[in-house]
Amino acid sequence: MIELIGLDGDDTLWRNEDYFTVTQDRFGELLGPYLPSPYLPSGIDVQRALETTERRNLEVFGYGAKGFTLSLIETAIELTDGRVPAAVIQDLVGFGRWILTHPVELLEGVADVVTELSASGRRLVIVTKGDLMHQEHKVAGSGLADLFDAIEIVSEKDEMTYRRLLERAHVMPDRFLMVGNSVRSDVLPVLAIGGQAVHIPYHTTWAHEHADHDGSVPTLASIRDLPAWLDTLSPKPR
Amino acid sequence: MIELIGLDGDDTLWRNEDYFTVTQDRFGELLGPYLPSPYLPSGIDVQRALETTERRNLEVFGYGAKGFTLSLIETAIELTDGRVPAAVIQDLVGFGRWILTHPVELLEGVADVVTELSASGRRLVIVTKGDLMHQEHKVAGSGLADLFDAIEIVSEKDEMTYRRLLERAHVMPDRFLMVGNSVRSDVLPVLAIGGQAVHIPYHTTWAHEHADHDGSVPTLASIRDLPAWLDTLSPKPR
Repeated sequence: MIELIGLDGDDTLWRNEDYFTVTQDRFGELLGPYLPSPYLPSGIDVQRALETTERRNLEVFGYGAKGFTLSLIETAIELTDGRVPAAVIQDLVGFGRWILTHPVELLEGVADVVTELSASGRRLVIVTKGDLMHQEHKVAGSGLADLFDAIEIVSEKDEMTYRRLLERAHVMPDRFLMVGNSVRSDVLPVLAIGGQAVHIPYHTTWAHEHADHDGSVPTLASIRDLPAWLDTLSPKPR
Repeated sequence: MIELIGLDGDDTLWRNEDYFTVTQDRFGELLGPYLPSPYLPSGIDVQRALETTERRNLEVFGYGAKGFTLSLIETAIELTDGRVPAAVIQDLVGFGRWILTHPVELLEGVADVVTELSASGRRLVIVTKGDLMHQEHKVAGSGLADLFDAIEIVSEKDEMTYRRLLERAHVMPDRFLMVGNSVRSDVLPVLAIGGQAVHIPYHTTWAHEHADHDGSVPTLASIRDLPAWLDTLSPKPR
């Protein structure tokens, strides 16, 4: 029986990665005129360089739009050997501000399903990572905060994070279900500590979050299918 | 009787503002050659412009070194009308990385006093704001994490934050004492919800955090004086 359902925020409840994708495309276009010859204006190599910078910075900057913006700036300076003008760097800071202030867009079906799950008597928790204040703004902007028993904004979604979360909630791992779009963050660490997980893929996933599961993890096409899947699993708690 | 003691992190348990001060001085020196005439190389006006940028960005970037670094970059571009070279901006990103990776330096007396308070039977909680991952690194690097019952990393220290914290801890406001260097964040909101506060000033305070109290708030010269002050207040819980 599932007592506590964890729901990932970014790209499970609301749109997120799309804003980064749009920004990265614009980034390649902006840098084009200042790149030395081995870099194609198509932006292919620019994306790879950005990914390398992001991975290198992850341990210091953490997840989220502010660290991403600093990585954009570093990559721009490195790739252009310092030829990038300050006006372009100002645009990059603007990209960060655009992501941080973008209105929350709930994914299709989320409002209905979260309302239904909340009424089913199970406890719900948002488990999300990224910049603290940005994630708080997204939770507030989602209009769903009151339907959740807790909001956990964490710096990394690993086994220790999930263990601590379950201790605080006084829930045994086998009574916990995590639902999210990232196999690396929402599925594998939860299975590793004895919990259950449902994968709801999003059409685009950040390279760093990419991982595969062995096919045995329940995978749903839409969050709309989650209540019916839960019904097949066990009777409702009340 | 005090059941729960909240301790601020930055500039109460460990050094913080000094790193920003050093960075700001360096910032003024770096920009000097690219400033138009009304700005003195002394950096006085540069500091004021940086403060204005930081305040403007606070609602979007939040507290912490990443937002500070983005504000440094914006201010540099604005003040120099875009003349600042990319190499200087790379230095500014480096300043942010320097702050984010600086080893934790506990303030004098902290290790002894936290150990003593922890042994006194009162519950202890760190209440700190800033970048999530950076604050986690500082808590881990302090070597004190095990002496605390909880670590609360928050985006803003206002009345609502303290109310929620006390609800989660099942503690009434009049049994809560907050200890910190910021009148604005550690003292006034706690008094407003009926809690108690002790002010331990630090030799430097960020302009945004500056506030005065009416003189009635207990003020200690050093955290070393906290156990004796607690003894005058009430018997120990056990």
